[in-house]
Amino acid sequence: MALREVGLLSPGDMGHVVGQVLVDNGMPVLTCLQGRSERTRALAQKAKIEEVASYEELVRRADLILSILVPAEAEKAARLVSEALRETGEKAVYVDCNAVSPATARSVGKIIEEAGSLFVDAGIIGPPPMRKGTTRFYASGADAEHFAQLRDYGLEVRVIGCEIGQASGLKMVYAALTKGLTALSTELLVAARQMGLYRDLLEEFRMSQKQEYGRMEKALPSMPPKARRWVGEMEEIAKTFQDLSLTPRIYQGAAEVYRFVGQTTLADETPETRDKSRSLEEMVEILALHLTSQS
Amino acid sequence: MALREVGLLSPGDMGHVVGQVLVDNGMPVLTCLQGRSERTRALAQKAKIEEVASYEELVRRADLILSILVPAEAEKAARLVSEALRETGEKAVYVDCNAVSPATARSVGKIIEEAGSLFVDAGIIGPPPMRKGTTRFYASGADAEHFAQLRDYGLEVRVIGCEIGQASGLKMVYAALTKGLTALSTELLVAARQMGLYRDLLEEFRMSQKQEYGRMEKALPSMPPKARRWVGEMEEIAKTFQDLSLTPRIYQGAAEVYRFVGQTTLADETPETRDKSRSLEEMVEILALHLTSQS
Repeated sequence: MALREVGLLSPGDMGHVVGQVLVDNGMPVLTCLQGRSERTRALAQKAKIEEVASYEELVRRADLILSILVPAEAEKAARLVSEALRETGEKAVYVDCNAVSPATARSVGKIIEEAGSLFVDAGIIGPPPMRKGTTRFYASGADAEHFAQLRDYGLEVRVIGCEIGQASGLKMVYAALTKGLTALSTELLVAARQMGLYRDLLEEFRMSQKQEYGRMEKALPSMPPKARRWVGEMEEIAKTFQDLSLTPRIYQGAAEVYRFVGQTTLADETPETRDKSRSLEEMVEILALHLTSQS
Repeated sequence: MALREVGLLSPGDMGHVVGQVLVDNGMPVLTCLQGRSERTRALAQKAKIEEVASYEELVRRADLILSILVPAEAEKAARLVSEALRETGEKAVYVDCNAVSPATARSVGKIIEEAGSLFVDAGIIGPPPMRKGTTRFYASGADAEHFAQLRDYGLEVRVIGCEIGQASGLKMVYAALTKGLTALSTELLVAARQMGLYRDLLEEFRMSQKQEYGRMEKALPSMPPKARRWVGEMEEIAKTFQDLSLTPRIYQGAAEVYRFVGQTTLADETPETRDKSRSLEEMVEILALHLTSQS
């Protein structure tokens, strides 16, 4: 099946860049913005993604639909599309790229397959693909090769198996490291600050944990605008681990850390508007003040 | 107060090396081995630590007592010593070096002070001090300078403040990073193995998380012999964070990971007897088999 147009749900921080890569490489991208924010609309325009009026129009025109959302919206989006597929009698390849557990991926897949369409499980590892070589689209499932055609339009797609759950599983264990470590680091720095031990800890870290401390300085200040979105992702990781008879608590705790960060003014910023001159220490200070004001 | 003899509770993996450093630098070290294992007795002999028959004899002879135990035993040990102090009418400087929360340190301090003795809060950062420069003894409290005299006998003692809870607090936030990260990494590698994604994850880690993966390869295989001991330490970190109105869950989860590792045959090994040729992948394989056999 040759692809003529690709549908995208939705052009947010990650999605609009993915759409832009496809558009820049000659693949038209469509989106339906029902219920989306003004910011998302602006991102879509910037990326030259065409807006369509309804999901019916989306499935009529698009051969392949990418779902790139917050985890909590993955099933809802699949239901909207499956209704449109039924109503129009159309068929599409639906690719769930969301950070969800294998169980959630399977349940999204079921929604799509029951509407008579094809489903691909995918997981995005890396930042929005502004530059070539930074971002990998892992994919799995019997129909993953349809999605792999997007290699010709600028996406690095890696098919790792023929089962639904493999690509999402890989995303879960990967994010378990990166976002788990960020949650854990954020919490312990705020704790050190609350005990008046921030400078002592820093001195020790500079001596014996230089590498990890360097990572914190680099990764933590850009996290707050993404914190609210990451709550659901941590809950999906917790679910993944629980389904494997491993403890879900580390990631339930990480979700709580991101929920806490999400309550602060720092989380009102966007990746574009955040104060890029703010240091790690200043960020920790703001979080600590919020914690103190609450208790 | 000049120190003539130091008491040690107890000469385990960390304690016997600390004792040996003091002995090697001309400070006699005494220990009471009531209720201790044959292995601990052997470690004491190796370190030339003198055994005394009772806690009464210990407090009669020692001017300063170091408590280096698993966190769960910190209060019990302080009670044994405080009884001996009362019965003999002796006075000593009692230094709690255990990985406990500031609240637990304060409660241990109260036990000692109510027996009329002096209390110092301490936290050990680094491995057993086999070599110079690897290990720092952070200390806090009004009487911390008594402990600081051990600088003349080979220990690197750093006084960071005059309040009980500062040194233990620093140990908590430091171990929150190192042992928290080890727990999190262990869990996600076992999860990847259970989903059949270990090799895919490794390939991705080698590309985009080289630094963290290197740390796992280095740190994880030596962890199982310490896992049972670390359960209590994670619980103390959870308590520390909860007392600061931060989520305790990440560390309750880390405690569960160490409890799980502690149930495997890997945890029956000691730092000396463990199979040092075992790779990270082989360790993960054994943990995964244990998990599968349980469910």
